[in-house]
Amino acid sequence: MVKKATSLFSVDVIKPDLTGRPAHMRIGERIRAAISSGALALNARVPSSRTLARDLGVARNTVDEALSQLVADGLIVRRRGAGSFVSDRPPRPAVPPAAPRIDAKRASAGARISNRAKALHCYPGHYQPSRAIPFTPSLPPSEFFPRKAWKRLVSREVSRPGTDYWEYGASNGLPALREAIAGHATAMRGTRASADQVIVTTSTQQAVELSAKVLADPGDFCWVETPGYQPVQHVLRSAGLDVVQVPVDEQGLDVEAGRTLQAHARLAYVTPSHQYPMGYEMSLTRRHALLSWARAEDAYIVEDDYDGDYRYEGRPITSLQDMGGDRVIYVGSFNKILFPGLRVAYALVPEPLVGAFVDAKHAADGHTALLSQGVLAAFISEGHLAHHLRTTRDIYNERRLAFLEEAQGLRGLMEFGPATAGMHVTGLFKDARIVDRAVAAACAARGVVVDPLSKYGAIDRGGLVFGFAGASRDRTGECLEIVRRAITGWKA
Amino acid sequence: MVKKATSLFSVDVIKPDLTGRPAHMRIGERIRAAISSGALALNARVPSSRTLARDLGVARNTVDEALSQLVADGLIVRRRGAGSFVSDRPPRPAVPPAAPRIDAKRASAGARISNRAKALHCYPGHYQPSRAIPFTPSLPPSEFFPRKAWKRLVSREVSRPGTDYWEYGASNGLPALREAIAGHATAMRGTRASADQVIVTTSTQQAVELSAKVLADPGDFCWVETPGYQPVQHVLRSAGLDVVQVPVDEQGLDVEAGRTLQAHARLAYVTPSHQYPMGYEMSLTRRHALLSWARAEDAYIVEDDYDGDYRYEGRPITSLQDMGGDRVIYVGSFNKILFPGLRVAYALVPEPLVGAFVDAKHAADGHTALLSQGVLAAFISEGHLAHHLRTTRDIYNERRLAFLEEAQGLRGLMEFGPATAGMHVTGLFKDARIVDRAVAAACAARGVVVDPLSKYGAIDRGGLVFGFAGASRDRTGECLEIVRRAITGWKA
Repeated sequence: MVKKATSLFSVDVIKPDLTGRPAHMRIGERIRAAISSGALALNARVPSSRTLARDLGVARNTVDEALSQLVADGLIVRRRGAGSFVSDRPPRPAVPPAAPRIDAKRASAGARISNRAKALHCYPGHYQPSRAIPFTPSLPPSEFFPRKAWKRLVSREVSRPGTDYWEYGASNGLPALREAIAGHATAMRGTRASADQVIVTTSTQQAVELSAKVLADPGDFCWVETPGYQPVQHVLRSAGLDVVQVPVDEQGLDVEAGRTLQAHARLAYVTPSHQYPMGYEMSLTRRHALLSWARAEDAYIVEDDYDGDYRYEGRPITSLQDMGGDRVIYVGSFNKILFPGLRVAYALVPEPLVGAFVDAKHAADGHTALLSQGVLAAFISEGHLAHHLRTTRDIYNERRLAFLEEAQGLRGLMEFGPATAGMHVTGLFKDARIVDRAVAAACAARGVVVDPLSKYGAIDRGGLVFGFAGASRDRTGECLEIVRRAITGWKA
Repeated sequence: MVKKATSLFSVDVIKPDLTGRPAHMRIGERIRAAISSGALALNARVPSSRTLARDLGVARNTVDEALSQLVADGLIVRRRGAGSFVSDRPPRPAVPPAAPRIDAKRASAGARISNRAKALHCYPGHYQPSRAIPFTPSLPPSEFFPRKAWKRLVSREVSRPGTDYWEYGASNGLPALREAIAGHATAMRGTRASADQVIVTTSTQQAVELSAKVLADPGDFCWVETPGYQPVQHVLRSAGLDVVQVPVDEQGLDVEAGRTLQAHARLAYVTPSHQYPMGYEMSLTRRHALLSWARAEDAYIVEDDYDGDYRYEGRPITSLQDMGGDRVIYVGSFNKILFPGLRVAYALVPEPLVGAFVDAKHAADGHTALLSQGVLAAFISEGHLAHHLRTTRDIYNERRLAFLEEAQGLRGLMEFGPATAGMHVTGLFKDARIVDRAVAAACAARGVVVDPLSKYGAIDRGGLVFGFAGASRDRTGECLEIVRRAITGWKA
């Protein structure tokens, strides 16, 4: 059935300024902003690209390129025989990043690449090392890491005779490291898993990919949180899974909504102790509901406890792994709490799945680098990790309190989510017309990095994700002032 | 129950000569040889390390180090309260043995796993470190690696101020390493690729998986060689590809057969410079035919040059990358030529595909560990790699010649393939009834590891894959004698 356009598509609201990035990107962004702000109504008919090109004074293929991207993102739909329309459904959250330097399709310049490769977004960051500056989310500030102790352990371990670091290693990881990890996770998060259930990986990404491969076949469904952590969605898609965007509210992932969208998923990826990016804790009721769903559907849950080591107020919530270990793959990473260059993370897997995970890890890359594993095992078992966590917990808490105090000045403009744990806090704009990407870009131009919330999926209102751990007490005020000015200076 | 020693442990048969490598290695090797040859009986009691040290005229901790290794390898067992004995069971295999110990389906004990996970074979080797012993294929003997130089570089690089090793790195790899790799590959194999075309990975496996994801979608076809390298087939399948077994003859992969089986493959995985495991070189005609096929089908070729650095006779063949770089992903690994615990390999990719590969690597695990990359970059650019390759090329060639000479005694039983390059040679049984897995098991029971050819795919005749680089000149004869006896003693 062909739907009728319910309103006009006004070219005026999308006329881009002619400075800066390629015209098709600017046009795309203006259309996107006009849709988010309501300036272009849902179901409005999009004029032909010929008409648009003429009205905007640009080449027709520039308009085509912009529109294709919007179609790919689900913001515009093409209806056979009727033309193009602003989508009346929430867009697929495959929102392009703030400032892509190379878009994978263009980069491949005529060379054929797979559909799954096209679906991977290309961030300029892929080509550059990145550092924690205020307020980069998910990057630990590097100055507190005890490099001296680490260096001493590296020099000691590389010279220690009789180690296995030079041969092929076991695919599940060095026994000493698996012991240390099982102990750490139990102490910090009350997980119930022995060293035999630990699979050492290079990253959270790899742990999630192994879960996808072991527990789902191409075409199977996987629930993810929306808004949610995008890199994990990329890896799930590249493993051939069909990603189902399940909304998140103050209680965490909405299990009932998930059932309605696609009950027969094989996997659900969640961040229950501190939802990324909203910061919510998954309620006990929801955690039980999620586990019941998994049991009923013979599905599994990937619990990403990416910052479970940092809690400042209240009791840590019980991990899903502790509540229903037979249904849960618990994932933790040392790249975020020690230093990102390390590349060691892990999964705790239900006992009956250990063999299959070991096989998958073996197929993927044999095993994780051995010297890093040995050094990390010593770092944990000799008490350096516990000491580092105590120190940084105090520092991050101080920064958190400074942030919350200074952020008072933003309360007229934003509503902040919970800030009781982790290393970031998310704020939503009170004015739904504000385009968060534009604000983030204005901040970046002044040396302050915040993530626009729209980067994390389809949302009603824009917002910003602040990595408070990355800004020292004395810089927090000035940085937040830059953010305040970027918001108030924002014009549609 | 404490077993009784059934014979004496004679020190005379293990007295090492006192030249050359560290004493503990020589002592270990002599004990190993004495066990293989039967000079030390199974279940013989091992004297105390104090006694052995005195009788051999070496320090006690030298003996301890040698014994620990033998215990780790399963050749000597310690029985509580009774002492140490020569094991009366076959040593734990150092490589994936013929028969899978755990089948993934059984291992998952009722838990649901995906079809692709079921298709991954589970070898006990996944759970254990493995070492090069005669004749383990694809494992570099560890004693020639210049550990001192490596350790010095590790200690230097970990302490060097101003490095990026502590932050997130670029997904394609450290610039210094990419430069070094591009230079090395051009010098050794005549590849034509700049540092911008290098993608640093953890392993050949990962490089192949990235190729599969970037260039093919689930359900797409990929040609592989049969017989061929199985781990790569596992990773292709786990990426959702449909693997097409294309036969190999003396000219390498049979392109015409591939066309007949499934012309519309998206990818072909080949080992043109030294087919694994048969050792054939791909003929120039076939290389041209493969490239024409790829161009006609808009397909890509993954060229795995796993031992292209070792050539003893004749000129190295031109790499496919050099012949048709726009269609070829060239893959090389440092895990096989330096040490397996390292986990650094690479792909050289056509320029238009760089962006898509970087995205795929970013999605898979962010980037490869940075300190390892930095140390390797220094190791290459400061000339250690070239020196190591020169040294080992001489040693492996010596071992190769010793092997070929001693293997004369097997020529009534086997036909050997080419042995002009690499680290292994393959022999086919003249008697097609012989079951290679049974022969390999009999060899393993006597401490000699050979791969049964049937492990590499469907074949008309059984055979054995010998890693000649793993056996010293003076051990080659005795080890081949064990193989000879295993073949002649074979019964259906």
